[in-house]
Amino acid sequence: MSVIPNVLAERYASSAMKSIWSAEGRIVLEREFWIAVMKAQKDLGLDIPDGVIEAYEQVKDQVNMDSINARERITRHDVKARIEEFCDLAGCEHIHKGMTSRDLTENVEQLQVWRSMQIIRDKAVAVLVRMSTRAGQWKDVPLAARTHNVAAQTTTVGKRIAMFGEEIVHALSSWISTMDRYAVRGLKGAVGTQLDQLSLFQQDKVRVIELENRVCAHLGIPSKLMNVGQVYPRSLDFSVVSGLVELTSGCSSFAKTLRLMAGHELATEGFAKGQTGSSAMPHKMNARSCERVNGFHIILKGLLTMIGGLAGDQWNEGDVSCSVVRRVVLPDSFFAADGLFETFLTVLDQMGIYEPVVEAELRRYLPFLMTTTILMEAVKRGVGRETAHEVIKEHAVAVSNDLRKGSITSNDLLDRLGADSRLGMTRAELQEIFDHNSRATGMAASQVDYFRDSVEALVAEYPAGASYKPGAIL
Amino acid sequence: MSVIPNVLAERYASSAMKSIWSAEGRIVLEREFWIAVMKAQKDLGLDIPDGVIEAYEQVKDQVNMDSINARERITRHDVKARIEEFCDLAGCEHIHKGMTSRDLTENVEQLQVWRSMQIIRDKAVAVLVRMSTRAGQWKDVPLAARTHNVAAQTTTVGKRIAMFGEEIVHALSSWISTMDRYAVRGLKGAVGTQLDQLSLFQQDKVRVIELENRVCAHLGIPSKLMNVGQVYPRSLDFSVVSGLVELTSGCSSFAKTLRLMAGHELATEGFAKGQTGSSAMPHKMNARSCERVNGFHIILKGLLTMIGGLAGDQWNEGDVSCSVVRRVVLPDSFFAADGLFETFLTVLDQMGIYEPVVEAELRRYLPFLMTTTILMEAVKRGVGRETAHEVIKEHAVAVSNDLRKGSITSNDLLDRLGADSRLGMTRAELQEIFDHNSRATGMAASQVDYFRDSVEALVAEYPAGASYKPGAIL
Amino acid sequence: MSVIPNVLAERYASSAMKSIWSAEGRIVLEREFWIAVMKAQKDLGLDIPDGVIEAYEQVKDQVNMDSINARERITRHDVKARIEEFCDLAGCEHIHKGMTSRDLTENVEQLQVWRSMQIIRDKAVAVLVRMSTRAGQWKDVPLAARTHNVAAQTTTVGKRIAMFGEEIVHALSSWISTMDRYAVRGLKGAVGTQLDQLSLFQQDKVRVIELENRVCAHLGIPSKLMNVGQVYPRSLDFSVVSGLVELTSGCSSFAKTLRLMAGHELATEGFAKGQTGSSAMPHKMNARSCERVNGFHIILKGLLTMIGGLAGDQWNEGDVSCSVVRRVVLPDSFFAADGLFETFLTVLDQMGIYEPVVEAELRRYLPFLMTTTILMEAVKRGVGRETAHEVIKEHAVAVSNDLRKGSITSNDLLDRLGADSRLGMTRAELQEIFDHNSRATGMAASQVDYFRDSVEALVAEYPAGASYKPGAIL
Amino acid sequence: MSVIPNVLAERYASSAMKSIWSAEGRIVLEREFWIAVMKAQKDLGLDIPDGVIEAYEQVKDQVNMDSINARERITRHDVKARIEEFCDLAGCEHIHKGMTSRDLTENVEQLQVWRSMQIIRDKAVAVLVRMSTRAGQWKDVPLAARTHNVAAQTTTVGKRIAMFGEEIVHALSSWISTMDRYAVRGLKGAVGTQLDQLSLFQQDKVRVIELENRVCAHLGIPSKLMNVGQVYPRSLDFSVVSGLVELTSGCSSFAKTLRLMAGHELATEGFAKGQTGSSAMPHKMNARSCERVNGFHIILKGLLTMIGGLAGDQWNEGDVSCSVVRRVVLPDSFFAADGLFETFLTVLDQMGIYEPVVEAELRRYLPFLMTTTILMEAVKRGVGRETAHEVIKEHAVAVSNDLRKGSITSNDLLDRLGADSRLGMTRAELQEIFDHNSRATGMAASQVDYFRDSVEALVAEYPAGASYKPGAIL
Repeated sequence: MSVIPNVLAERYASSAMKSIWSAEGRIVLEREFWIAVMKAQKDLGLDIPDGVIEAYEQVKDQVNMDSINARERITRHDVKARIEEFCDLAGCEHIHKGMTSRDLTENVEQLQVWRSMQIIRDKAVAVLVRMSTRAGQWKDVPLAARTHNVAAQTTTVGKRIAMFGEEIVHALSSWISTMDRYAVRGLKGAVGTQLDQLSLFQQDKVRVIELENRVCAHLGIPSKLMNVGQVYPRSLDFSVVSGLVELTSGCSSFAKTLRLMAGHELATEGFAKGQTGSSAMPHKMNARSCERVNGFHIILKGLLTMIGGLAGDQWNEGDVSCSVVRRVVLPDSFFAADGLFETFLTVLDQMGIYEPVVEAELRRYLPFLMTTTILMEAVKRGVGRETAHEVIKEHAVAVSNDLRKGSITSNDLLDRLGADSRLGMTRAELQEIFDHNSRATGMAASQVDYFRDSVEALVAEYPAGASYKPGAIL
Repeated sequence: MSVIPNVLAERYASSAMKSIWSAEGRIVLEREFWIAVMKAQKDLGLDIPDGVIEAYEQVKDQVNMDSINARERITRHDVKARIEEFCDLAGCEHIHKGMTSRDLTENVEQLQVWRSMQIIRDKAVAVLVRMSTRAGQWKDVPLAARTHNVAAQTTTVGKRIAMFGEEIVHALSSWISTMDRYAVRGLKGAVGTQLDQLSLFQQDKVRVIELENRVCAHLGIPSKLMNVGQVYPRSLDFSVVSGLVELTSGCSSFAKTLRLMAGHELATEGFAKGQTGSSAMPHKMNARSCERVNGFHIILKGLLTMIGGLAGDQWNEGDVSCSVVRRVVLPDSFFAADGLFETFLTVLDQMGIYEPVVEAELRRYLPFLMTTTILMEAVKRGVGRETAHEVIKEHAVAVSNDLRKGSITSNDLLDRLGADSRLGMTRAELQEIFDHNSRATGMAASQVDYFRDSVEALVAEYPAGASYKPGAIL
Repeated sequence: MSVIPNVLAERYASSAMKSIWSAEGRIVLEREFWIAVMKAQKDLGLDIPDGVIEAYEQVKDQVNMDSINARERITRHDVKARIEEFCDLAGCEHIHKGMTSRDLTENVEQLQVWRSMQIIRDKAVAVLVRMSTRAGQWKDVPLAARTHNVAAQTTTVGKRIAMFGEEIVHALSSWISTMDRYAVRGLKGAVGTQLDQLSLFQQDKVRVIELENRVCAHLGIPSKLMNVGQVYPRSLDFSVVSGLVELTSGCSSFAKTLRLMAGHELATEGFAKGQTGSSAMPHKMNARSCERVNGFHIILKGLLTMIGGLAGDQWNEGDVSCSVVRRVVLPDSFFAADGLFETFLTVLDQMGIYEPVVEAELRRYLPFLMTTTILMEAVKRGVGRETAHEVIKEHAVAVSNDLRKGSITSNDLLDRLGADSRLGMTRAELQEIFDHNSRATGMAASQVDYFRDSVEALVAEYPAGASYKPGAIL
Repeated sequence: MSVIPNVLAERYASSAMKSIWSAEGRIVLEREFWIAVMKAQKDLGLDIPDGVIEAYEQVKDQVNMDSINARERITRHDVKARIEEFCDLAGCEHIHKGMTSRDLTENVEQLQVWRSMQIIRDKAVAVLVRMSTRAGQWKDVPLAARTHNVAAQTTTVGKRIAMFGEEIVHALSSWISTMDRYAVRGLKGAVGTQLDQLSLFQQDKVRVIELENRVCAHLGIPSKLMNVGQVYPRSLDFSVVSGLVELTSGCSSFAKTLRLMAGHELATEGFAKGQTGSSAMPHKMNARSCERVNGFHIILKGLLTMIGGLAGDQWNEGDVSCSVVRRVVLPDSFFAADGLFETFLTVLDQMGIYEPVVEAELRRYLPFLMTTTILMEAVKRGVGRETAHEVIKEHAVAVSNDLRKGSITSNDLLDRLGADSRLGMTRAELQEIFDHNSRATGMAASQVDYFRDSVEALVAEYPAGASYKPGAIL
């Protein structure tokens, strides 16, 4: 029987994300951590001969899982097996000094989280770049905005995209702030009192603290916890996963809206010049990728419940009822978020708007949406308010019913109003009002500009994210 | 980079469970399903030559994933690739007649669920067998029952186990009832109207229904849905996962209680004759497996949130925003539950009670627990109720404070009461009351018997479960 | 400042449900429980004078919360205050014999749950009665079934309703089975050993068990737990709330589908003869009640997470970290479910289908949906399969693009195919195929009948539910 | 039947929090909002006569719910009723100009959230002040730190408190950052395009934006959204509720640890000079309030699932399937968090440590915890490492078993080692090692100081929070 794969990793996640959480990737991160500790220890006076660190650095990417696993079968201790393997490769024994297993594993898991957070941040920037482009592209395409899923007033396609985009901008700012605060456990020993590090440095507290500071600086994690037990507080894990849910909410709502639009040919998630839908059913523009985005969001919310089961339930200096939970939640959260972003980036790259369908829908509803305006114009021309209201309502209801009954197929409210002498407006006059106002979209265009400016600022700060291109998706 | 494994499957689940959800296992289940359909079709008059079904049956376990994957790269269609592989192996082309892909995949996923449910049911029976044995073993060992985590009254170790056991009995009855109701989607076509089956059988509705009935009977799934769309309602998946949460709740509560007991040497989750704890810290009896049981339960509750995100959110005849979610939830729920049971069975097999510590704790608290009894006895002997109450309270508070202050190490309340002439009872008399009542555990023993009888009834019905032995755990 | 109300109770729940969970309602349930205990105690030989039970029964509905609260301010004990009030009203002191507070409160809370479960069951039956009627009413109205929110094949409106209906039938069977298994804690004393009841009956175990059996029989709760601690297992609460989620999932999916339909005028949730939508925007048929149904379902899933936080986390013989959680979850779950059913029943009573719009949509898509059929017919007439496929695809793509570009407004695929000599079929022949198959809905009608029969069986069993009428909703 | 109260509000929340979410409180917030809009409108040139704003301000706290409700019964529109009431009280009609209902309700709900966030922030500061005091008070009291709920190494009581405290400091920093980013929807009209505001200001975009800026500045909400639809993104609500879960996780873990400690008399949650526990069972120190803190945390996690059901599920420019959910989640989240803080503050004020019991426990375990140290000392004195290890292990296992068997009641490992000539150390020498190291707690004290400094910095910034005193709890 072959290995049962992690489906989120193997079907959906990018190889960059997988490499962080793979067995091999973790080994490399551990080795980088050990090297960082050694460097700091040497700088602070511990006797580590010249050349040793270089020896380790040279072999740190030589990962042979078979060899490590074979060692583990002998030592019966996973960390020990990894120490031995790395030392044998390097030809010396200077890693892991004054460290307990948790000093390695907690920090490396945080490093995995930290590296993953960077990837996610960059992909969110990449999403925003595309949303900005799309919002600009369709900035002036009027669209029947919907509330309660029913046409309500005019907006633009670009504004609709900017709306979801700004939600993501806001959540990204939250995500970046979580990153800025992200704090590593450091080298704290078995119950958090740094007893072993103190022994190693002959009770010199200053150097013990300096050691940690250097290790953290080396790793790039911005902050450090001082008061911990065996483990760091799991509310940190919680804040990361809840941040992922927050960050992907705008994507999910937009994907859901695209599914609604695709069901009525207003838009498609996949649209290339000359491309058609399914050959069997050419009209079918299934929003499968958008459905998948929604699926990933549901997965993330379930993972949040899991990690929420740990936060606030830690006993004393630490229990490991969290162990199996974190083995699932931490990688899966990042795989799911990564898969979501890969999918959503592809949607943004390939989506299309069927402007004629959008326009037809708008025209169909517009007369209804503008009854208030027509009423005001009629009053201006001297018709009594109540009379005008009565006339308009009478015809609007009739048109609506005729449309539903199928006796007419397009909205002829203006014809009927123009033909009714009580209102005192010609068909041409009504058309003029209509034409003038059917393009009225308030501050939609300025709002889109505002969104695009905020994305530009992000691009300046995170250029790597801005230029990211997703891989091929299933 | 090696494949990232599903950690729940590869670290914790049994091979029986893994084989159901493995790529190979699924292939076999699909083939069994196709064969069942063919058999029924043949019986109902479809032209399937003699020997064909046998030809398929002979090769159904020859699964070559590489060959299937190679075909998929050519056909770009997973189900098609599997059809071709199976047909080539069998040397004929008679499977999948009148079926759409969903007719295969929905039913096979339900088959995977169904087979997994049977495994889980049997392991729950295996758990109960052990809990019955343990409850019997310690049926008469008095124990300070705790409410609010504080000693309250006397119960027995056996009764405590029976308490969690009966919770599991109740949940198992719920699980079995869910199994009895479990209903398969059947062969319903693209949107659920059975259009294609009807064509195949020339509009003969009776045979179309009979075909489904036979397929279901063959598979052993007890019930069948009539009105479905493209997919079966995801509230069925929800009921399965919520059933797993319910079924494992008693295990989780017991595991948590064992962790509490182990922290104060009342019990251990791992205890064999001559065995000691950690060689470094011989007193350490970490309840790691019990922590893991609690972790699995948290995972299941997160998976429930995921699947709950699908139930009640199905659009029209079906959307596939559920697809990626079910790829995660269905196997992971069963892997987690299976891992939980494997772990918990091991705990039940290896756990131990330190009776002297249990007894010492009880003795320490007993005088407090019996103040009401002593009060009643004093009143019987003619002491005024208020006087007796005052005297007892005075001494009890003093003893409690002295214990907390450390000025005494054992509870000497009886000595103090015996020495106080206001109460009119000798030390010996008090001891007699004490001795008589310290063994009073109400109907605990009968309750344990009741529990054991209910387990015996389950054993009679599910003997395979009763004799199940867990594999080695990490 | 006025009291902050429970919004679920005061805005949405029925008065029957509120009365169970109101302060006054609970008092009455407690008194009924005390009376049931007394009756059983008297029958089993306890000295309770004649007339006493009648005296209590006569006053049990005289609930004066002010008086009870005043007593509590003096006694500082809620249960004591209630005992005194009831006894003073009845003029005697015979309740609560041999009972601890939990013997009262656990059982009464279960009684509240039990009574609420009956209400919910009956409302689910009421829902099904209406769905059966609606499914029958529109059994033969063809509808473009949608998968991926895109038109796929023909079904009927009635079948769509039966599909969601059968999901509810299945969940209701699960709910009824949960009710059948629902087990009450009984009179078990402080830690579950029945010590106090045994004292009261002079160690006569038989009568102690008989007492409980009679109390349970009197209350109507079908089953009884034997091995409990201070409290009953919270996995029972979990199974009730998860049952509510399951039971309402079909309602929620249907409500969501109605929202989708209403957004395109296929249906409305509120529709009475002569009725129009909003006077301001006459075309607006907001599915506000359906949105609310979806909201309630989300609330229930959150409450499930809460109650899931208790199951599997019970320490020893019971801790009360569950207390505040259950104060929220138990009533709120039933208020939310009750509000959902009241709302959904109203939707079912008032909903309407705009058949012409349904028909127009179907006609618009039908030519696409039937390309496979046309292909087969062409092949029958001697056209090469590949030629036919090429021709059909060419025109279908063109029609689809023209529709999206807005250059045509209705689907003219048949015209184009009829005009293409390569296919060898006249427009009239194509129309015949079209007309014949546009009504083909497979076994939809039989399936609807099956659903209606299963509802009829439920009506026979639960006539009270069948005749229930919802109150007015906001 | 009396009104069914919101149990979280009426039993647990402070009156400050209740007043924000009460019907009356909301009326006042709405009026303050209207006034803020008017002020800005006047400043920007809208014709609002002098004295008008003052007239409204003078009556804004005169809330008569009966009068408002009576108006609503006539107007059938809640916002209209409130407008009329306020205008009649003020004697003029200048509020709500150019606003839609959502312009009022969305912003006022955000104001409720914002005010509640401030209260919560201040209470978190108040919690930290007390934790700092407690950590300082017990900074040097050695304690057997526990991992896996089993004694592992020495820490101090103060450090244990600082550990949970720093978790809260970290989460508070996250909370404050969420507050800093909190963005209000502003005056955006029916679908977010500001059409109506633009009309009011004759298409002057600059003043429309300035109006919003002033309204936001007036209200004190730091940020503003530009691209919204009918409503603001519900991921904002999500971030608030997840922030509450994060902020209270440290409280919940500490409460859980206190429950563990209380169960073995190491600590009590309620402890005043001369105070005793329950009069009936004087030894009982139930951690009821800590249990309640844990219960509140579970409630918050359920509410997070609810609000998570909205985020990522918003259709188009807004649907109101969120309405009923937010009516529950927003107030209940703040009531639960507020009740949690009120309870936890009380625990921190009243808790006590039984130092002799703490010391006794430590002494009991210490010899085990120090076997590694003794081993190293023996080796220094020339004993072979393997010999020493063998001797120590032999005796440690024996002591551990004797303790569990009850044949000894205190740990006599040093006696046995001192009596074993193989180790070459006298009892006195061992005692000296023991005494020296039994006080070794690494950097625990410095860590506590670090924590206390960070709290001091918060106090300087939030003095109001620092001086907050909780109300009386149930």
